[in-house]
Order: sequence, then structure tokens, then C-alpha cells
Amino acid sequence: MLIAEPLQKAIDELSKLPSIGKKTAQRLAIHLLKNDREVVESLITSLRELKEKIHFCKVCFNISVDDICLICKSVKRDRTVLCVVEDASDVLSIEKTNEYNGLYHVLGGVLNPLSGITAESLKIKELMNRVTNNEIREIILALNPNAEGDATSLYLSRLLKETSVKISRIARGLPIGGDIEFADSATIGRAFIGRIQV
Amino acid sequence: MLIAEPLQKAIDELSKLPSIGKKTAQRLAIHLLKNDREVVESLITSLRELKEKIHFCKVCFNISVDDICLICKSVKRDRTVLCVVEDASDVLSIEKTNEYNGLYHVLGGVLNPLSGITAESLKIKELMNRVTNNEIREIILALNPNAEGDATSLYLSRLLKETSVKISRIARGLPIGGDIEFADSATIGRAFIGRIQV
Repeated sequence: MLIAEPLQKAIDELSKLPSIGKKTAQRLAIHLLKNDREVVESLITSLRELKEKIHFCKVCFNISVDDICLICKSVKRDRTVLCVVEDASDVLSIEKTNEYNGLYHVLGGVLNPLSGITAESLKIKELMNRVTNNEIREIILALNPNAEGDATSLYLSRLLKETSVKISRIARGLPIGGDIEFADSATIGRAFIGRIQV
Repeated sequence: MLIAEPLQKAIDELSKLPSIGKKTAQRLAIHLLKNDREVVESLITSLRELKEKIHFCKVCFNISVDDICLICKSVKRDRTVLCVVEDASDVLSIEKTNEYNGLYHVLGGVLNPLSGITAESLKIKELMNRVTNNEIREIILALNPNAEGDATSLYLSRLLKETSVKISRIARGLPIGGDIEFADSATIGRAFIGRIQV
């Protein structure tokens, strides 16, 4: 009642963002309120340019400034390997490791029938087209290790078995720096099943 | 390197906000990127209106749409009691309790010489003017229970002792729903010192 209406509106808008609750939204709004106009304007400009300048790559659906993204264009990447991920943010995380030098395919989500996300709403048809029309030899499924990710991996591996490409899935096990004592039993179980000979 | 420049800029701007790290900023930026243009535009509009429509009350320095805020204007509030807080967000938190019906005075910070925040950069002169020119009988110091808050409370109580107003400070002790076993010893110590007869 005593919250000024423009402040309440800003709090409501900010708390729609993922991982931002009401309290954090209030803190952010009051921080912006206390700061200079330039701070807010430079945030606004960056958000607008984000939306105006960035599109999705027509080949892999990764984020891109141009029609085709830098990874798909690059001549230094191994064009015979394709890594399937859920989201563009996964591409960023994998790129940071410097362990992967192939191409990507961003599905734009994982199968989740309860939320209405079916195979048709994901870029699965486009994936199949890429696999059959190109020189791809291996597909690495790098979806999140949860129920939806696993279901999607299973679905994709069944579809892809009809082609001649090799299919793999990134390993599950104890995270580096993790502690067996504090790991959940599903993770420890997976680490045993996925053990490799040394 | 492979992060498109407008995305990197948005991540940088978002991670300048309090409690938003690089990872959260990346998540927020990609969330906005995936959403419709209207979602981003409505966030942008709310941030711009926040800055354009909201000012600070000329009397208590709380946030306000008009020159004088709703609390200072209200005829239902007890004008003999003044609660001194650090920030406008503290006013919101205290108002939510429905336990306080007096007026406020927002200092705009607490004394912190290392960060260059001295008595002159806070609204202390304005507080003294309000106290000497008005019918105020009690001042409640409601600053955060930390080193800077305590130093500021001490400074203010010394200044205010020269006037005839009653000065009080909000209680410290165990938080409601808290657990003695898990409370830190400073809090338990304060709870003993501040015990009240039942």
C-alpha cells in the first residue's frame, strides 16, 4: 500500500526473471533507484541491444549476431562431431572448458509432455536433417542429467540409431573437487556404473 | 571470445547489480534473449519509469512519487515519533510489520569513513532540523546491527542527547523462529544483556 506504484511495477517485472525472488527484486529496484540515471540507461541500452542485435544461428540455433554463428562458420572446428545441448547457455559453458572442438546443435529445450514440450517444439527435425545431409560421424548428447534430459537423450538415441553415426553421452559421476561423503547416492551409483579401466 | 558482443555487454551490465554474479547474469541474459520482445520491453519500461517517476521525499528522504511522501502526508500517523533508518528498503520492511505508526527519517547510508561516508554525506543535518523544529518526542534508531550501524547509532544518540527527545534503539536478540543451538554467540550474548522482566 505504501510502496509507490512505479517501484511496485519494477519489483514485479524484476521478480519475473529466473532465480530472482521478491526480496532480491526489491533490493535491485532500490539499488537502481539510488544510482545515477546513466547506470539505469546503460542497463536499458544493453538489454535492448541484446534483443535487437542477437538472433539465432540458422544452422545450429546457437545465439549469433549474424545469420550463421561464429562456431558454424569457423574453419578451425571439427565438422564431423556434433554436440547436442538443451540451451545456448550450455554452449557457453562447454566452450569455456576448451575441451571440445566440434559443432553444436541447440535443441531449445528438452522433452516435457506435462509442460507441453513435445518433439515438434524442439529442433529435432533440424538435427536429423543435419545428420543425414552432412559428413557428421559422431553425435555427443550433452543434456542435463535429470529426468527430462535423460528421456530426451533416450528419444534422440533411438531416432539416431537409424543413421550410421556414432552416438555418445557425456559422463556422469562425481564432480571434480566433490566429496564422496557428501554426494547423493544416485551420483555415487552412476559413478560406479560408469567406472573406466585405468 | 565466442560470446556475441551484445550478450557479453548485457551480462556485464546485469552483473553490476547487487547479488547478481557472472553466472546469474548469464542466465538472466539468455532468459531475456529466449523470451518475446514484449517481456524485455515491459521490463525496460518499468525500469525507466522507476527512474523517471520516483523521487525522494523532501522531508524524510523516503522514496515517493510526489515531493512529500504518503507517510509524511498521512494524518493517521503519529507525528511525535520518528524512526531513523539507513535505507528506503528498511521503511518497506518496517511498514510490512504493521507495528509502527510514526514517521521516518532515511539517512541514506551509515557512517563508514573507509568508504568515504562521513556525517556530511548522510541526512543528519536534516534530521537535527526536524527534531528541533517539530513536536517530536521520541526517536527510534533502527539501523542494522553491525559495526557501521552501531557506530552511526552511537554518533546520533550523542548528537540527539543535546535535545530533549527520548532516544531508543530497536532490540537485538534471537530472531523469532530461531534456534539457540544455531545462533552465534554475539546474538545470544545480546539476548542476555537485553533480557526483559516477564
